Amino acid sequence: MSQVEPRPFILNAFEMTTVSHTNFGLWRHPEDRTSEYTGLRFWTDLARLLDEGGFDGLFIADGVGQLDVYGGSAAAALAGGVQAPINDPLLAVSAMAAVTEHLGFGLTVSTTYEYPYLLARKFTTLDHLTEGRVAWNVVTSTRDSAARNILGRDSQIPHDTRYEIAEEFIDVAYKLWEGSWEDDAVVRDRERRVYTDPAKVHPIAHRGKHFTVPGPHLSEPSPQRTPVLFQAGTSEAGKTFAARHAEVVFLHGPTPELVRRQTDDIRARAVAAGRSRDAVKFITSVLVVTGPTDAAARDRYEQLTRYHSAEGSLVLLSGVTGVDWSTANLDAPLEYVETEGGRSALATYTKLDPARRWTLRDIYGELGRNEAIVGGAKTVVDRLEALADEGGLDGFNLSYALMPGTFEDFIDYVVPELRRRGRIRERQPGQTLRQRLFGAESPYLPDEHPGSRYRREGPTWPSIAPSREAATAAA
Amino acid sequence: MSQVEPRPFILNAFEMTTVSHTNFGLWRHPEDRTSEYTGLRFWTDLARLLDEGGFDGLFIADGVGQLDVYGGSAAAALAGGVQAPINDPLLAVSAMAAVTEHLGFGLTVSTTYEYPYLLARKFTTLDHLTEGRVAWNVVTSTRDSAARNILGRDSQIPHDTRYEIAEEFIDVAYKLWEGSWEDDAVVRDRERRVYTDPAKVHPIAHRGKHFTVPGPHLSEPSPQRTPVLFQAGTSEAGKTFAARHAEVVFLHGPTPELVRRQTDDIRARAVAAGRSRDAVKFITSVLVVTGPTDAAARDRYEQLTRYHSAEGSLVLLSGVTGVDWSTANLDAPLEYVETEGGRSALATYTKLDPARRWTLRDIYGELGRNEAIVGGAKTVVDRLEALADEGGLDGFNLSYALMPGTFEDFIDYVVPELRRRGRIRERQPGQTLRQRLFGAESPYLPDEHPGSRYRREGPTWPSIAPSREAATAAA
Repeated sequence: MSQVEPRPFILNAFEMTTVSHTNFGLWRHPEDRTSEYTGLRFWTDLARLLDEGGFDGLFIADGVGQLDVYGGSAAAALAGGVQAPINDPLLAVSAMAAVTEHLGFGLTVSTTYEYPYLLARKFTTLDHLTEGRVAWNVVTSTRDSAARNILGRDSQIPHDTRYEIAEEFIDVAYKLWEGSWEDDAVVRDRERRVYTDPAKVHPIAHRGKHFTVPGPHLSEPSPQRTPVLFQAGTSEAGKTFAARHAEVVFLHGPTPELVRRQTDDIRARAVAAGRSRDAVKFITSVLVVTGPTDAAARDRYEQLTRYHSAEGSLVLLSGVTGVDWSTANLDAPLEYVETEGGRSALATYTKLDPARRWTLRDIYGELGRNEAIVGGAKTVVDRLEALADEGGLDGFNLSYALMPGTFEDFIDYVVPELRRRGRIRERQPGQTLRQRLFGAESPYLPDEHPGSRYRREGPTWPSIAPSREAATAAA
Repeated sequence: MSQVEPRPFILNAFEMTTVSHTNFGLWRHPEDRTSEYTGLRFWTDLARLLDEGGFDGLFIADGVGQLDVYGGSAAAALAGGVQAPINDPLLAVSAMAAVTEHLGFGLTVSTTYEYPYLLARKFTTLDHLTEGRVAWNVVTSTRDSAARNILGRDSQIPHDTRYEIAEEFIDVAYKLWEGSWEDDAVVRDRERRVYTDPAKVHPIAHRGKHFTVPGPHLSEPSPQRTPVLFQAGTSEAGKTFAARHAEVVFLHGPTPELVRRQTDDIRARAVAAGRSRDAVKFITSVLVVTGPTDAAARDRYEQLTRYHSAEGSLVLLSGVTGVDWSTANLDAPLEYVETEGGRSALATYTKLDPARRWTLRDIYGELGRNEAIVGGAKTVVDRLEALADEGGLDGFNLSYALMPGTFEDFIDYVVPELRRRGRIRERQPGQTLRQRLFGAESPYLPDEHPGSRYRREGPTWPSIAPSREAATAAA
């Protein structure tokens, strides 16, 4: 499409299976339902609201360790409901799929704590159950506490090793998803008594440094085969991984210019890796507080801010950076901080524009780690469009202050204006998430994607010989 | 209750997330819907049918490796749809929970391929989403193909080591489920700004041979805390594990007398382990083919049998025993077979009554690995009651020949007669699965259960100190 006709935004709700994802303190607000996150109804209500409201997807973050760096323990995280307690992000998806028609589900799973043979089956199962509406947000995990409790290690696996594992992990997954079962392997031929033609199922014969998977995939191909691949990572290894594998990259930056540097960089890397310029879509997270007028939105924002817990933001920041910020002054200029490996998020921010000295408040907005947009429909959509233009972005993960109030307000006030400007995607029945997000004909990975090279054309891998009963029946 | 008043049976539907669980060949029957197993609707329709029809639960088996012993490859399993392809058993549960009120979900997960810290979170999440309706069928896995593809091993971990791992695994899970979060840890106190009282959340400090888990559980307590524990195992190690941990034991035997030997044995072991005589319930699998009359049921059975694949039964048997039965004669007396470790299922059967020589056909009925009961309502219920009396059983996992036809017929013809005889459980709203199955007041493990010893009374473990923000707010 030309620049004259604006492209629809990717519009996700950004959530976590917990009390407070980024809206620290807001669970105390009388209108907030977040603390019902353990219940089925919470998720089906949310999914229905988003699906009917024009959203493309629900993006569910995860963090499988407690935030125990701040103050040296998990006490502040627990007391504040800061991403604690936290439940598994995959298990309510089928219930949400049952009450929605189009909504996609972006699911965060780490390559550090799963076996590829079994995780591939989980995503294939979900892609079947949702009829092709799942995305995998590939993460490698940063928290030491996760490594201690899951792997029994003293600290997290070093950053570059985690990405090395992730590279091999996703390679195994591609082989299982793309290369193991041919499209016409499942024949359900009642006469010949053949459910699956064994000659069209291929052991993947993977033998690598971290994983050995000789056999074929357990599951038959799902609508998308490989789920849509989301990734968030701004380290060198993370950007290389994103440029190679990601279809949607989720990134942050304190200013649109600094976001643009990252999107340009990853786009260039993707092209260098043989992918087309628009093969990778970019999204960032924003918090939108809106209302019938700019003034009403500002009032709302003021009211919400009174519930915000600054400590919550620092608990999260401490967990992400590995630095205990419990005694920090929000408004003091930050020292340049370079922590080891994947815990360098703050360093990454400051590195982006070394000329400027940041404060914690610059980075963590009043209502959490978000660009906050406060205003009526026109103000909000103008700002979203500017952010997208300036940052080279294709859409947004919308955070919330109130659950589900923030999304209800967005749908009531902002979506009509977005729709008027051609920014809401038209839905076509039966489309997979990949087809919808990329306007693609095929539900599968594009040919240029590295996962596609495992697609089987001709007998590159051995097949399983036909069974005797089938042979007898056919004779 | 006295013997005069019969106790309700435990009544589960026995299923697997695959084409043919035990009804090999029946996917070719024009009325069978099994091959729709990938779809959400298949599962929600089945759950609704069972819930309204008086069933207590849906028991979902799993097998995370291909059946590749028979004929030396997975060809026959694939061609025949013999537990292949196979999807993940946990992911449709929330959708089924959303359309049912009472139905329980018995979910098979192996302790050999999961991390206890994460599996504990999965079950807690599901127990929340289902409002206390989940059971965990604890297995240790037997298939070499699973060990090869998941763990990268040449063969399965030795049987007794698997049980040693399982013992430590479940111990870690108890500590997380029972001992980490006190009942009143989550306070949601808006005034004091305390979501969770950190002083009531306890790191479990587990440091064992196979697992190290220093921290507290990620999730807040669910309605049952520990899911109802199902177990199937007839080896020495399996029986010891069952007597110690299981609340419902699932077992098989070629005759009721041989089933009785096992139930008596495990009951005695449970008592020796300090549990009460009725602490463990026993179920076995049966296939019921019924109809308005005995004659109609027999006609139906004859018709179904024409679709049955004997090869399918042998594919499964080969996978379970580790012996390639592809050239075996169904009617020849079997040689005594003792295979290594957990793959001794056939040996276990033959060991039970060494005076008799079994044939494959004795063990694997015409329609799969089941006791088949064919008849009208009275015939069926008489036989179920006799099986229960003679075998010391509390209920049944009902297999199917046709999906969902077998369950529809059972509900139409047999359930009314079962109800008349007091064999169908009355449902009370809001009960957890454990309360319903055991008639218990508490939704939690009984005090005598080994998992209960981790319940915290007094400061046996350190607590997490309160956070400063909460302290400041309180001051």
